[in-house]
Formats: sequence, structure tokens, C-alpha cells
Amino acid sequence: MATLFKDVYILDGSREKAALGHVLVSKGRIVSVLDASLEPPSADKIISGHKRMAVLPGFVNAHTHAAMTLVRGLGEESPLMEWLTKKVWPVEAKLTAEHIYWGTYSAILEMLATGTTCFADMYFEMDRVAEAALQSGIRAALCRGVMADANDKDKINRSLNDNLELAAKWHGREGLITVQIGPHAPYTVPFDDMKKIASAAKEHGLGVHLHYLETEFELNYIKNELKTSPENYLIDTGLMDAPHLVLAHAVYFEPELADKLKLANLTLVHNPCSNLKLGSGVMKLKEWLAKDAAVALGTDGASSNNRLDMWEEMRTAALLHKGVNKDPVCVSALDVLRMATYDGARAFGFAQKGLVREGWMADLVLVDLDKPHYIGANCDNLAAYIVYAGSSADVAGTMVNGKWLYRNGDFPTLDKVEILQRARAAREEITR
Amino acid sequence: MATLFKDVYILDGSREKAALGHVLVSKGRIVSVLDASLEPPSADKIISGHKRMAVLPGFVNAHTHAAMTLVRGLGEESPLMEWLTKKVWPVEAKLTAEHIYWGTYSAILEMLATGTTCFADMYFEMDRVAEAALQSGIRAALCRGVMADANDKDKINRSLNDNLELAAKWHGREGLITVQIGPHAPYTVPFDDMKKIASAAKEHGLGVHLHYLETEFELNYIKNELKTSPENYLIDTGLMDAPHLVLAHAVYFEPELADKLKLANLTLVHNPCSNLKLGSGVMKLKEWLAKDAAVALGTDGASSNNRLDMWEEMRTAALLHKGVNKDPVCVSALDVLRMATYDGARAFGFAQKGLVREGWMADLVLVDLDKPHYIGANCDNLAAYIVYAGSSADVAGTMVNGKWLYRNGDFPTLDKVEILQRARAAREEITR
Repeated sequence: MATLFKDVYILDGSREKAALGHVLVSKGRIVSVLDASLEPPSADKIISGHKRMAVLPGFVNAHTHAAMTLVRGLGEESPLMEWLTKKVWPVEAKLTAEHIYWGTYSAILEMLATGTTCFADMYFEMDRVAEAALQSGIRAALCRGVMADANDKDKINRSLNDNLELAAKWHGREGLITVQIGPHAPYTVPFDDMKKIASAAKEHGLGVHLHYLETEFELNYIKNELKTSPENYLIDTGLMDAPHLVLAHAVYFEPELADKLKLANLTLVHNPCSNLKLGSGVMKLKEWLAKDAAVALGTDGASSNNRLDMWEEMRTAALLHKGVNKDPVCVSALDVLRMATYDGARAFGFAQKGLVREGWMADLVLVDLDKPHYIGANCDNLAAYIVYAGSSADVAGTMVNGKWLYRNGDFPTLDKVEILQRARAAREEITR
Repeated sequence: MATLFKDVYILDGSREKAALGHVLVSKGRIVSVLDASLEPPSADKIISGHKRMAVLPGFVNAHTHAAMTLVRGLGEESPLMEWLTKKVWPVEAKLTAEHIYWGTYSAILEMLATGTTCFADMYFEMDRVAEAALQSGIRAALCRGVMADANDKDKINRSLNDNLELAAKWHGREGLITVQIGPHAPYTVPFDDMKKIASAAKEHGLGVHLHYLETEFELNYIKNELKTSPENYLIDTGLMDAPHLVLAHAVYFEPELADKLKLANLTLVHNPCSNLKLGSGVMKLKEWLAKDAAVALGTDGASSNNRLDMWEEMRTAALLHKGVNKDPVCVSALDVLRMATYDGARAFGFAQKGLVREGWMADLVLVDLDKPHYIGANCDNLAAYIVYAGSSADVAGTMVNGKWLYRNGDFPTLDKVEILQRARAAREEITR
């Protein structure tokens, strides 16, 4: 079945301006992208934009912990360690695989409703996360959070094995899922284990996704406890030799280090809302972009944001760096749009995803521009309207692999009522 | 006609936690606020919340230029002076009174749809702004932007007279409108004229609303050109003696000056998104709150934000200061909720507005909590859910003076289609 988007604005992170035209989708792919002056092709289903709708690539939430929807709002506005040790961890410890399945599914509803077509997840019980993702039809990049446990010496090995089994079972599945290895962070994974993980990643051809320099504590840990530097840590562990290395947060990662590292296989993930909310600080995005580093965008888990809405991350990223740098020209709307789409897809091994191009994946967001805040939008300024004036309330539909998973407020293929009931029940069980 | 909100969460900036209960509204006022254990009173119209809806006070957008919806998106991402002189001012110069009427009306639609029940506006052709406000039914606090013009020596006197005539005609009108005097800023109004304005404010019993220390340039101007200090400027002009003084932006206003100023009649307006977008910087909100200063929240004009959505301002304020101060405990959800409601209402002379209390104005927002991101919300944590996880997409209705002006996506008393058509036509005329 072919779907035609007729007379719509077409925008992605590779275009300096939007175009008016037609987009034909069939069998999960974008079949053609035509200028508005051309006759639109025929299709089974026609969505007529009347020049009041836009088609964008679906967003890629490049760093989250989806099932943490179940611990959202616990112990808000506590100091960081108190929040983790007294509020989040004791509750997380009660999570069963079944809870994680429904918590993830609930997160998927939130993400689809806000235009996200792919999420990169690090958590545990990842088989169940993979099942929720595959059943929902969303794309996902999954890794098992691997960390040491002082009371359970073998835990880190078991977790790594879990992660490799996850890859064997799910990597590449139906073109919807990729798997990475997910060492939690340098301060929770001993140096030699990190080397082992980097080596396994290389051997199995898997990317690595880890937290890196989220807080100043971590920078000091690398310097004072590990007696090395942030760049040498990545080189000496072998992490830089992984097929792709994704560093989440990178708040205390200095952009001048770009000159010492191969950037081709490296992606940083900026999580501006989470970094603000937890008081971690502000990543040096302006400088990293000036170094031509690939930077994706993510929400982090719902408990430190507290939304799973990539529009919020785009807007916050585009505003925040202008303010802290006192530079109204830095970090453009187009920059953050590309970060929220193409850069995330590339980081997690989804080729031909993240742009509206012939042959590319039909992972699309349909945006309703027939609203007061889009008056004046045109091809030249659409990216600015989307990022500064727009919000997820403007999402009229989210299509993954050519299928509508969200459309006009509904999830045509999903049982929203059951998912929310199950997620609510899970929340009640773990906080009882 | 009486309206009953039954079994709803009730929250405002004066409550440490939300309550479950009933709210009865009649003749524009909140008649009673009852605990859920009590029998709800009878009413003509019952909105049954089933413990999945919340009633909050309507938001007060405490600093905006509503008709700038018509110049939104012009010259995005240009350096500040180039943006103003080449993109915004030449287009603004073409605005007629009729344009401003429709631009304001379009802004009112945006504000109502996002839960705002009152806006504080500084612009020109304010008679037409007042008409749009009154006809729409929203509350408004209006002032004529008064500034000098080197090519038109008498302009500042005429503007001040306009402002005083605006007050004579509109101040207090139907309880919906208050008028302030609106000297633009210390760098656009000569010192002696500012004294005259302050004196007129005192004489006529009007508040004063001005831009103050938005940028570092303004701080330097006060020091180097006016040869005074920020606090002495306010004292020596007599501005501190106005019935109420509202200082918009205050990015470069130092909190230690609080000790030298009478705070009782002073309100600062924080515009976090605009200050970030224009690269102005970050106001010292944490420290001002510690001084017990009254701080309200505003969006500024749509062209420097680019939204008129108080949920965005609440969220950005609550996140931003945690991040820049590296303090996850500062500027709480409850702080920003109070700023966005009660503090704004008080600043502009609306007594008994901004809290959900018996006898207070029935200016209310109904919030739909039956969404994935509210799973886990309860009386203890509702403010955090609203501010961090919520968005204007959750607004199920906006009531001003006991009347629904926005409900479930529609504007029952307004002609949305005509307003948008007229605003679009105005935009086309001024950018032709």
C-alpha cells in the first residue's frame, strides 16, 4: 500500500530550507520526493497537506532509560545522591521483567505521540524491552546496562553475557532493532572490564553506548582515581576502536579534545533537560559543533527530565546555548533538527534513516501547521518555526517503517488503555 | 449559572501539596473549595474529574508584546541589532491599528489555549489591544510603550498622554483590565522624562511597567551614560514610589540590591526563554527568591521566544537555574507555579486572582491528567508533575471570570477561523 503526502512542506537536517512538494511512501521506504510543481503520483491513501502540513524525519531519542517512566516523580527536588539512594534505587530494585515491559510500552506511547520513531535504551531485562519495541513497531537501539557490583563479583560478567546474548537474538531483527554494548560508566565499570567490553564490541561488530562525564565527579574520578585523562581513557580502553562509540551527556568533555580523537566513529548525546534538572551543568555544544563532531539529542530517563519529548530537547538545546554563550546566532534550529534525527540514527547503526530522501526509511512525523503560532512560516524559516514556536502538540501523525503508529491523537495499532492500566498497576506495585 | 469541578486535584502556588476535592464557581468567582470527603454542592454544570483532572489558577503572562505574533520568525538567528534594525523594526513600522488588533487577538488564542487567563502587554495602538482583550474575555494589564524619538521631540509627551488616556478610559473596566504606565527602558527614556512618568504614576495611582537591565549594555548605560547605579536610578527617578513597579527581564539586576530597595511594591518579571534566545543571559532567580522578592513569569513577545506558552516558561525557569547553579534543589516547581499565577496577578493590580480560594476570581485552568506522563502523580508531587512532565497539550480548558474561553481544543465564544485569517492577512501585508 502506498501513501502520498501531497502539497506538504518537506524539511530535514540536510536542507538549508524546506521545500513544498509531495512524498510517496511504500513498503516502509520513501519512494519519491517531488517538487510541488510536479504532478503528484497516485497512491492508495492520500494525505493532502494544502501547504499547511510539514513532513519531517522521525526523531531519534538517542539516550534514555524507557522503563524509568515507572519511577518518574519519585523524590523530586532532592539532592542528587539522596534522590538516587533513597528514592529511585530502592524502588528500581523491585522492578520485575513484567514491570519493565509495561513501563517501556508506556514510554513508547509517549514517544510516538511526540514524533519519536526510534529510541536508544540502556536498562536491564532488555529482552522484554525488545519485545515491547518490536510489538509496538517503533525502532530501538538497545543495550544492557553493564556495571560492577561489589557484593556480586560475577555480576559484571553475567551482564556482559546478557548483553551479547541480546545482540545475538535481536541485532538487526526485522530492520527495526540494533543492539549495542552498554557499559554504564567509567566509575561503575573497572578499567580492565571496560577493556574487555571494548574488545568484545570490536569482535562482535557492535557499537558501545555509555554514560561519559555527565558530572564533575566523573571527571575527577577519571583524573584522580584512574590517573588518566578523558581522551586517554577512551583510547587506552579501546573504546575508540569500537565500530561506533556513543557518549551520553559529555557535559565535562572538553571540545579541544576533538583534535586528539578520531571523530568519524564517535557520537556525543546531548541531554540538555536532564543535565539542567539534575544540576549537572551545560555541555559545550557550541564548541563541539564547531569541531564538526556528531552530536545527537536525548531525553535521558523520564525521572530526570521529566518528559520523553524530543521537541523539548530541540527547543532547550537551541535556546540554552545562545543564553549561556550570550550568542544569539549559535546552535541553529537546523543544527538541533539534524541532531534530533540524522545524527541519532547514524549513531546507532540505522543507515538511510533521519532524512526525507528517496530510498530512505519511511520514519516520518506529520506536523500540523494550521495553528496561530505558524502564521508566517515558509520554506525559508520553517526550521526556526518548528524548533522555537512548535511543540509536540503539533504532531498530527508518527509513521515508522511506513506504518502509522500514531495519528490524530490515537494509536491505531496499539491498545493504549491496556498499556496505561498495566503501567499504572506496575507503578502501584513498586511504590506500595 | 454555577459550574462544579467534582473530584479534581486542586493546586495553587500557596499550597505545599495538592488536595482532592470540589470547586464550585458562580458569577465569575470561586464560591467554595471543598475536601473530597464532603458532599459536592449542586450545580447547573458538573465537570467530573474522576481524580484524573486538576484545577489550577490561570496563568498570568506578566510581560509580553502580544501583537508581535505578526513579526514572529522574521530574521531568525541574526545578531541582535541586525535582527532589530533590519528585520523587526522596518516591518513593525508598517503595523496599523487594525493589524495590531488582529495580531493581539491571534496571540490571545495562543494564550488561552495554553492556560493563560491574563497578559501584561506593552505596545502601541493600545486602544485596539484593549478592545481585543475585552471582546475576547481575557484579562489584561496594558501599557503604552513610551520612548523618546530623536526626530520627533514631542513624541514622548504624546505617548505619555496616550498612556494616561488609555488609563482614563480602560483602567478597571469590567474588572478585566488594568492599566499601567509603560516607559520603555532607561536607555530610551531620558532621565527627566522618567521622573515625570514616575510622578504621573504616583499622581494617577497607576503602576509602572518597564524593561530593566535586560542586557549588559543597559547596565553599562546606567553606569557610564547616566552616571548612577541600578538601585539609585530606581530611587532617584521616583520609580520606587509608584504604586507598583514591574521590572521586566532584570537579567543584570543584582540580588544583593534587594537590601537597599523596598520590595513590597516591586515585582521582577523573569522571561527565561526570551533571555536565552536573544543571548541576553540568565537572571539570578535563585538569589532573588532567597531575598523573598516577588518574581513573576512572562514570555516576552512571540518574536523572541517564539511561543506564548507559560508552561514553557515554568519548565525552563525550573530547569535552567538548577543547571546553571549546579543545584538540583533550587527554584522548585511550586516556586514557578506561584510565579506564573499569583505573583503576576498581584503585580498588575488584580486582587484575589492567582489562587484557588473561596471568593477569588474564577480564572482557572483544567488539566487532563489521564495521560502516560502523569502516571504516579498524587497530592504530594503534583506540582512537580505539572512543571516537569506537563505541557500545554494537557490543558483541557481555560476559564476566565467563570466563563470557558477555551475548552477541549475549541474557543466556544470566539471566531477562531476569522481571527486567524485576519492575522494571516496582516502578516502578508506587512511583509509584502
